[in-house]
Amino acid sequence: MIIILKQKTDQHQLENLMGWLKEKGLEVHPTVGESRSILGLVGDTSKLDMDLIASLDIVENVKRVQEPYKNANRKFHPMDTVIKVGNTQIGGGNLTLMAGPCSVENEEQIVAVAQAVKASGATMLRGGAFKPRTSPYAFQGLGKEGLRLLSLAKKETGLPVVTEIMEASQLEYFDDVDVIQVGARNMQNFNLLKLLGSQKKPVMIKRGLANTYEEWLMSAEYVMSEGNENVILCERGIRTFETQTRNTLDLAAIPLLRNLTHLPIIADPSHATGKIALIPAMATAAVAAGTDGLLIEVHNDPTKALCDGPQSLRPEAFDKLARKLLALHEFLKTQED
Amino acid sequence: MIIILKQKTDQHQLENLMGWLKEKGLEVHPTVGESRSILGLVGDTSKLDMDLIASLDIVENVKRVQEPYKNANRKFHPMDTVIKVGNTQIGGGNLTLMAGPCSVENEEQIVAVAQAVKASGATMLRGGAFKPRTSPYAFQGLGKEGLRLLSLAKKETGLPVVTEIMEASQLEYFDDVDVIQVGARNMQNFNLLKLLGSQKKPVMIKRGLANTYEEWLMSAEYVMSEGNENVILCERGIRTFETQTRNTLDLAAIPLLRNLTHLPIIADPSHATGKIALIPAMATAAVAAGTDGLLIEVHNDPTKALCDGPQSLRPEAFDKLARKLLALHEFLKTQED
Amino acid sequence: MIIILKQKTDQHQLENLMGWLKEKGLEVHPTVGESRSILGLVGDTSKLDMDLIASLDIVENVKRVQEPYKNANRKFHPMDTVIKVGNTQIGGGNLTLMAGPCSVENEEQIVAVAQAVKASGATMLRGGAFKPRTSPYAFQGLGKEGLRLLSLAKKETGLPVVTEIMEASQLEYFDDVDVIQVGARNMQNFNLLKLLGSQKKPVMIKRGLANTYEEWLMSAEYVMSEGNENVILCERGIRTFETQTRNTLDLAAIPLLRNLTHLPIIADPSHATGKIALIPAMATAAVAAGTDGLLIEVHNDPTKALCDGPQSLRPEAFDKLARKLLALHEFLKTQED
Amino acid sequence: MIIILKQKTDQHQLENLMGWLKEKGLEVHPTVGESRSILGLVGDTSKLDMDLIASLDIVENVKRVQEPYKNANRKFHPMDTVIKVGNTQIGGGNLTLMAGPCSVENEEQIVAVAQAVKASGATMLRGGAFKPRTSPYAFQGLGKEGLRLLSLAKKETGLPVVTEIMEASQLEYFDDVDVIQVGARNMQNFNLLKLLGSQKKPVMIKRGLANTYEEWLMSAEYVMSEGNENVILCERGIRTFETQTRNTLDLAAIPLLRNLTHLPIIADPSHATGKIALIPAMATAAVAAGTDGLLIEVHNDPTKALCDGPQSLRPEAFDKLARKLLALHEFLKTQED
Repeated sequence: MIIILKQKTDQHQLENLMGWLKEKGLEVHPTVGESRSILGLVGDTSKLDMDLIASLDIVENVKRVQEPYKNANRKFHPMDTVIKVGNTQIGGGNLTLMAGPCSVENEEQIVAVAQAVKASGATMLRGGAFKPRTSPYAFQGLGKEGLRLLSLAKKETGLPVVTEIMEASQLEYFDDVDVIQVGARNMQNFNLLKLLGSQKKPVMIKRGLANTYEEWLMSAEYVMSEGNENVILCERGIRTFETQTRNTLDLAAIPLLRNLTHLPIIADPSHATGKIALIPAMATAAVAAGTDGLLIEVHNDPTKALCDGPQSLRPEAFDKLARKLLALHEFLKTQED
Repeated sequence: MIIILKQKTDQHQLENLMGWLKEKGLEVHPTVGESRSILGLVGDTSKLDMDLIASLDIVENVKRVQEPYKNANRKFHPMDTVIKVGNTQIGGGNLTLMAGPCSVENEEQIVAVAQAVKASGATMLRGGAFKPRTSPYAFQGLGKEGLRLLSLAKKETGLPVVTEIMEASQLEYFDDVDVIQVGARNMQNFNLLKLLGSQKKPVMIKRGLANTYEEWLMSAEYVMSEGNENVILCERGIRTFETQTRNTLDLAAIPLLRNLTHLPIIADPSHATGKIALIPAMATAAVAAGTDGLLIEVHNDPTKALCDGPQSLRPEAFDKLARKLLALHEFLKTQED
Repeated sequence: MIIILKQKTDQHQLENLMGWLKEKGLEVHPTVGESRSILGLVGDTSKLDMDLIASLDIVENVKRVQEPYKNANRKFHPMDTVIKVGNTQIGGGNLTLMAGPCSVENEEQIVAVAQAVKASGATMLRGGAFKPRTSPYAFQGLGKEGLRLLSLAKKETGLPVVTEIMEASQLEYFDDVDVIQVGARNMQNFNLLKLLGSQKKPVMIKRGLANTYEEWLMSAEYVMSEGNENVILCERGIRTFETQTRNTLDLAAIPLLRNLTHLPIIADPSHATGKIALIPAMATAAVAAGTDGLLIEVHNDPTKALCDGPQSLRPEAFDKLARKLLALHEFLKTQED
Repeated sequence: MIIILKQKTDQHQLENLMGWLKEKGLEVHPTVGESRSILGLVGDTSKLDMDLIASLDIVENVKRVQEPYKNANRKFHPMDTVIKVGNTQIGGGNLTLMAGPCSVENEEQIVAVAQAVKASGATMLRGGAFKPRTSPYAFQGLGKEGLRLLSLAKKETGLPVVTEIMEASQLEYFDDVDVIQVGARNMQNFNLLKLLGSQKKPVMIKRGLANTYEEWLMSAEYVMSEGNENVILCERGIRTFETQTRNTLDLAAIPLLRNLTHLPIIADPSHATGKIALIPAMATAAVAAGTDGLLIEVHNDPTKALCDGPQSLRPEAFDKLARKLLALHEFLKTQED
């Protein structure tokens, strides 16, 4: 951490600050310039409150040179985290296809979709039971009943299930869920993150609509600092000025986060684009960018989907796409050194 | 609502769609053009799922012409909502100053600040007990103990209290709180909003960092549709590309929302700018823009604030500012017709 | 176009408006609702001024249902535009690799890079002579001398050249340039666009940092409406809140624009990410997303590059990447129906 | 400037770097940490190329601690710049009202508006002759003829004129213009800025739609570094996710830039909001935030304005607003210490 001091620094205050920093176990290296002086701090600054220091009268600015996350940081954990879910492994060079409908609607629908996506190569079933909706008047999901139907589909197909939790009180119903999803709007619901850190099921955190990589990793850190190391990151698009797509899928997140963290990184082209027509190209691009998996909406009757219809593929379209994605994944392996 | 059809529309599907819309109680007015046809819908479309319609094969696009919020809509509730809190009234031409520290730290601090801000003209006390922090390693607030200290300060000064709730399970501790604040990161925590709609205390909803006015009003609608009409909106800055301020205070929200909704609108220049030096100018500007109140951080020792220090004024600076703001509010009344 | 009228519409003003619209050759279809009426317009509305109509007392809002661009619109020009440059064709299923240094520095450098990238499979040479720099104190490019050196490299290798123009007065030096690039900051320099529309060399327009697809297509329309149909679009990343990449490459632009326009679409992963380490993944992803070509910075000594060094590959790295990209392009052809 | 080195730094490369920095006249202060070392640079780093340094193999990151602008920097020029235009002074505590139509349309219109706004207290006339329009099919302004009509209105009223230049070749027609405006889309048209720096008329630079304060000041620096110190900054709203206003007026720019620069700062609530109904509130707020002036669109017949109609006040509304703004400006002076 670097502390940039104001031009005319009170010597007494400066000594106080340096003393306080040394008490925290840090080495302090001053650089005195004509127009400005800086203090370079050496040691563990991850728990130092930048805002507090920035508020001091003699301080102009504070800049980190080290990442504020530890558990999620590849520097302290160089090996890829591989998460085992049923017979599937997420991370470590695998391509995990998680497919299923936006909303679970009824037994027939969810079982049929589960069977179809399994046949096409998906190794996990996704489906929404608790649905965050911008409008209180929109369909809010089947809730507990939806979770029951997902369990049925899991029993039928053997596919492990990923589904979204919206608040702490719902956790008791998630016994048969394999991966718990935290939605984009809850990425900084810190109480929910802590709760999910205190249990053992893998947690998949979707990136918030206007959040940075560092904020996202800090949300992973909330879960991990409570003891649960099984965290998956899911890029699902960020809000930009473009209105012809629902969001903008930021695929650079994949190679960049690969360097910053050891956690698996998944992409969701369905929510990101909001348009069926763009899903194949963006799913293909995500595989090319090195994603560990994809979350793809598949519905057996998109025109009757109760929510988020425009981003669901029919099973036949998914079948074609899944085959292409898996073939591409194999092809790219042959291109590596 | 307007449905724009694709260029070559299957006549049978079109008839199905028109029949379905009529079943929903809507009048359907088609406009047939050479390159494209549209359907104009007349009636209550607020509960119609735009995504569902947009997903149909024959539909190119759907556009609303009516606002999707009802309870919060000034069209159906022309009179200003005025919220009574203790002896104070929020809305209806009053200027309510809510002041206090970012975090409650100890009895001495909170009582002293409460007394100081009351003497300067504040009519509500703000203070954080449960604190949302980006990092799990940052100070998370005193929690229940913080609420107890706020009660003490309220008893000492008579000032009603506004403080933030972070999750449902905390509500049981909010008995002595007067206005419950929902933070920016929880603006779309729909379960929390519904819970707060099912109780009677006023709810102040901060605008999310990247949310639109309509999304914000839909969050108010979540509370109101459950039966609680006492909602206050608080503009606290949005995320922009500028990094020299913490966020960008969007003051146009005040006059614009005044037309869209009957709910009171408050501004928070402290969080928005993140810089003490900008608070006086931005608070003054908010009053000039017609705000119903201000949320201002005041700390008796800003350089020791446990969090968000850079945005807290000392009581003396607040005193000077409060007098200026109240004088300006009076002056502006004399300038109206 | 749809005109949404205010709730209480003056009948006389409405008749005036409808008369004026009919004079413009449009059919007007009114839909009268209880709370609001709308006018649906049928005919060529592309030259109608939405702002003017929106400013009328009786109008609440105006919405387009048709794209405001004609020449660039795939609806009126279903076949892909293929642009011939030397022996290369841009568009129509080809993958054009345009490679070279950010800045032309000297003869030795530009000739050596040109020879290297040609050997690796590039079919166009890129290189900056006139450089837009945020700071007046940064290196501004070699200017005319840079263009002369590009000509030399073209003579040596036969590679056609693409380079940036910054203002009208420079055009006279572009005789030996094959494709004229308009930079992101000049995307809405409308005078420059018109000038480039009145000559015949192909124009490559980079997307502005905060511009929408429609604004970008309108910039293409500026060139095309003056008579030059040879326009290439280049996605080079948009500004977002993320600071760890220079910009965010919006790859969804590729499949989405493919539907909207017949013009070729190129991606620039170097400028977009600003980091060498991300270029291979993002270039690969762009090919997977269906790009018509890539603009890649290659420098024979990145650590001495005079500008934009962090985004330049060395020739050996480019060689490896180019072979992978061309192999992927072939592989993806085998995956189509 | 601070250079953050990679974890394992080659000693030889490090010595080369330190030697090169010292050759540039800088003092280099190393801070060696366990996980990372940093170099603190003391001296004039404004002309050092950050990108070049960041591209070096041994460098992880480079951070500025000093502003990259000199001429525009208040640190080196503590007194406010006051710009004299005719009998008016911009800056230094004055409130300059610049009013007039978006587009000059004809003699009658521009003279009538000029007379009206002068009577209401405006001391400068604004009006567009060369108009940047997103669409090539929209009205592009009267051009040279518009400038001639502005001269007529100036002769009639004595009001100095501010109007926009779009490209270098237009400068020859600006002889009778008093302040040359650079539009938001040209804020980084660096060639145009240099040209305007080489002449003596004051230049008003509008902030780009997605530009930061620092980029804006660097654009001022482009003009000033060529010798023209008469630069005015104009905040006209930035692009955000909100679609109900045209842009978001960032009033915090006013107090913040006041600290960073000595140049006058003007606000344009008309373009920023794009809605007549919001102009009075936002103009009032801008005065409260400490603006040096306002650019307000006034049209004698808003419903017939050829462009940007929705943001023009009628003269009667401007008269009322101008009186309120000038009274508020006087009132606020009485509130200062």
